[in-house]
Amino acid sequence: MTHKHIIDLDDLTLNELDKITSLADEIYKNPEKYNEACKGKILATLFYEPSTRTQMSFQTAMLKLGGQTIGFDNPMNSSVAKGESLKDTIKIVSGYANIIAMRHPMEGSAKAASFYSSVPVINGGDGGHLHPTQTLTDVVTLHHELGRLDNLCIGVCGDLKNGRTVHSLIKTLSHFKGNRFVLIATKELTIPDYIKKIMDKNGCSYTEVLTLAEAIPQLDVLYMTRIQKERFASEEEYLAQQGVFVLDKEKLKSAKKDLKILHPLPRVDEITIDVDDDPRAIYFKQAVYGVYARMALILLLLDDNSEPAKPSFEGAEECKNPRCISAQEKYLPKCYKTAGNDKICEYCDAKV
Amino acid sequence: MTHKHIIDLDDLTLNELDKITSLADEIYKNPEKYNEACKGKILATLFYEPSTRTQMSFQTAMLKLGGQTIGFDNPMNSSVAKGESLKDTIKIVSGYANIIAMRHPMEGSAKAASFYSSVPVINGGDGGHLHPTQTLTDVVTLHHELGRLDNLCIGVCGDLKNGRTVHSLIKTLSHFKGNRFVLIATKELTIPDYIKKIMDKNGCSYTEVLTLAEAIPQLDVLYMTRIQKERFASEEEYLAQQGVFVLDKEKLKSAKKDLKILHPLPRVDEITIDVDDDPRAIYFKQAVYGVYARMALILLLLDDNSEPAKPSFEGAEECKNPRCISAQEKYLPKCYKTAGNDKICEYCDAKV
Amino acid sequence: MTHKHIIDLDDLTLNELDKITSLADEIYKNPEKYNEACKGKILATLFYEPSTRTQMSFQTAMLKLGGQTIGFDNPMNSSVAKGESLKDTIKIVSGYANIIAMRHPMEGSAKAASFYSSVPVINGGDGGHLHPTQTLTDVVTLHHELGRLDNLCIGVCGDLKNGRTVHSLIKTLSHFKGNRFVLIATKELTIPDYIKKIMDKNGCSYTEVLTLAEAIPQLDVLYMTRIQKERFASEEEYLAQQGVFVLDKEKLKSAKKDLKILHPLPRVDEITIDVDDDPRAIYFKQAVYGVYARMALILLLLDDNSEPAKPSFEGAEECKNPRCISAQEKYLPKCYKTAGNDKICEYCDAKV
Repeated sequence: MTHKHIIDLDDLTLNELDKITSLADEIYKNPEKYNEACKGKILATLFYEPSTRTQMSFQTAMLKLGGQTIGFDNPMNSSVAKGESLKDTIKIVSGYANIIAMRHPMEGSAKAASFYSSVPVINGGDGGHLHPTQTLTDVVTLHHELGRLDNLCIGVCGDLKNGRTVHSLIKTLSHFKGNRFVLIATKELTIPDYIKKIMDKNGCSYTEVLTLAEAIPQLDVLYMTRIQKERFASEEEYLAQQGVFVLDKEKLKSAKKDLKILHPLPRVDEITIDVDDDPRAIYFKQAVYGVYARMALILLLLDDNSEPAKPSFEGAEECKNPRCISAQEKYLPKCYKTAGNDKICEYCDAKV
Repeated sequence: MTHKHIIDLDDLTLNELDKITSLADEIYKNPEKYNEACKGKILATLFYEPSTRTQMSFQTAMLKLGGQTIGFDNPMNSSVAKGESLKDTIKIVSGYANIIAMRHPMEGSAKAASFYSSVPVINGGDGGHLHPTQTLTDVVTLHHELGRLDNLCIGVCGDLKNGRTVHSLIKTLSHFKGNRFVLIATKELTIPDYIKKIMDKNGCSYTEVLTLAEAIPQLDVLYMTRIQKERFASEEEYLAQQGVFVLDKEKLKSAKKDLKILHPLPRVDEITIDVDDDPRAIYFKQAVYGVYARMALILLLLDDNSEPAKPSFEGAEECKNPRCISAQEKYLPKCYKTAGNDKICEYCDAKV
Repeated sequence: MTHKHIIDLDDLTLNELDKITSLADEIYKNPEKYNEACKGKILATLFYEPSTRTQMSFQTAMLKLGGQTIGFDNPMNSSVAKGESLKDTIKIVSGYANIIAMRHPMEGSAKAASFYSSVPVINGGDGGHLHPTQTLTDVVTLHHELGRLDNLCIGVCGDLKNGRTVHSLIKTLSHFKGNRFVLIATKELTIPDYIKKIMDKNGCSYTEVLTLAEAIPQLDVLYMTRIQKERFASEEEYLAQQGVFVLDKEKLKSAKKDLKILHPLPRVDEITIDVDDDPRAIYFKQAVYGVYARMALILLLLDDNSEPAKPSFEGAEECKNPRCISAQEKYLPKCYKTAGNDKICEYCDAKV
């Protein structure tokens, strides 16, 4: 791999993605071959915002490789509470650990951290921006369960406007040929235009539908996510739509026999409990694949002796996004990169 | 063992109990024989309510067996805060770990968890209901210190009405022949009738006394627990009784030379500091035995390939206990089992 | 070593200090020789007050030695919240772990803990009193970077009145011959008299200056610390002095080429970001040396079979310091020791 850090899945080539999924498969099949692969190595999990599941998944991955972990899960207990900058924390922790997995509420924080870290940084979620190891988990799950990532009819259901895991999954799967997407959401919560453009550019067809029921029969994969009540246009709208985006046993009756139902978890009520025992429901297995995805990623990053890709630093211009890490950590170099006709912030990808 | 989970000590046969205490003894004597017994295995400690001592005891046990641990100790930092059900958390964590130790404020929570876990669940305390590893600790302590669990005169002192550790200890020790109990408490805080019935049924004699002083001379074992101030009938009552249930050097003068003083800890002031240096005070050693008890338990559960005992599910009826886990987690199947003439809740053992 | 606990660096002879710095050097050079040195051993990190950095440094040290860790970082989650005494916690944890590193907000707490621990206790900071492993870190850093601890011109800058790390560093380095100190602070925040007396006694010369700029050219070592805004005599004073005690690139121009800039971290703004890339800035490397210092300390303490030095217990007299651990934990024996003409508290070193 030519990246020492994993900040954004877009930075990976398909070849690199294939390397990760293949290695995850291989470890899944022969875990004992890898149970000392990281002996003597330390993973730091720096969780500036708590996320027990993701943190335990990283920790489990490192422990299963024979490594060890340090870290924190509570910003109020950390030096951050004493006003320490992200830079200083990363400078120090990268002197303690061999690799860092980090979650932070500000967008672009993992990118910023990677500028100062002497060891690989894995983005474990930076605000509503990116969460590459979730998408890796999804891809490893599909690859392992279906044996392929192409020629699939993939339904994505829920809040498609704001759901970063959905955006990232579509972007990634649109690179494989023959994939077709069914976008299932209310009119208000439909997919952003830039994702549509990506599907168009990569030659993926897609259809937009307003109910889960009409989408189900054609799907090979159903990726469920939550719609928060407050995302509906009004209380009436919410009550009228209630149930339309909930997967239950009844709706499943018209589904294919080998459908794969995924969910990034935690779920609230968008999948009813009675679906859990259906063999097509693989969201709990998906969490297990997430451990293997992270094991593969840790191994490849630790084996990688290449220099990290340099940030472009095309020019200095202040980012206006209040959720951008550069709005909080003032010492960060202002910098943008060019994407098409746009200048976008090096950290958070917002237009400058 | 025929149980894949340890929810309630009552589920164990005397033979199984003996297996655990014998193995604990054996590990205590030859720890180096076991220091890689759980290599590559992971214990998850899920503490929905903090209890540093118990959690550290489980962690130490697993580490001394060469295993590793993950987990949380702060529900506000966990996915629970995002509204995740106990079922989903258990489904996922049992995909990460090889065994789970869990503490939860709701009664019956460990039982509920065991329905969904693909790995053994150890109840580390479910509200005021059960705390089997504390009783195992007590039993391992007595077995190791005295070489036997029968023909003992056992004093239990404190809040005998509400103390779950006392109830569990009496239930367990009443199965061994020749044991005699001296119940030391105020009139208001005496032992519940159902515990008396168990002693009667198992042929154990017992006497009830109102002061620690009169009980002490006859005891082989003194199990001290705390009476909370607010448990006394009134402030006057409290002041009048103050000291009556406090063990101090003076009261110890009339005790046997080989008395064993136990306490589940933490203590507040029911044992004075000057007793600590008395060789008969073994409550700190007891905490060490607790580690060995948990090591034995973890080993036996991980070695056990039998199917877990099926819940009885005799019928569906809603439990009325507001502290029952079924009152909080609505998806749990309602079910009761039969105990004598009563129907009792499968989770919390309250009468239905 | 003749001490089983490390409470105060003053308890170490120069020979012992040399043993630690030499071993730290040796581990730094050949880490793989030590990566199983503590296999099967457990370090408990008991942090009654959060300090992520220090706790992670101890944990990393133990993990790099092949050992394991347990502990807590949040007093509200610990048994302490249930009113457990320090004594009881230490009694129990020293039954779980092979060595304890402890931080506590009360002065003298580590000393008090050492009275009850059956395993070595390392003071990881007891209120504003002592923090010996920080000074060890500083000494290991200088020893490794400079190859010597003597004949140095050492500038210390910041709040010299209240800074415990500065006091401890001066006390330690004053034992080596030829060292000269430049004390850089406002008039109000100058070094206490007792530190001056120590320098005098040990034959170290020192000068006091009011600006960083005038001190810099002569220094071999610059130890920077923070002055809190509220320590200045007034708002005007603060504004007038702003920048005088801030190290920036401009001020560095007059410095020696092989100056070593240290900082105990976290910094706030007393060193500007643009200094970080100067090769003379070694405060981030210093944090790494801190891990090696702690590795050496852990190893030497675990190898040490000697009896811990007995507390002097010269007599019983109540300490009046409200921040002394003896003010909180009432069961602690009152005791003082003699220092010159003074009686000072055995725990917190306050005059009795």
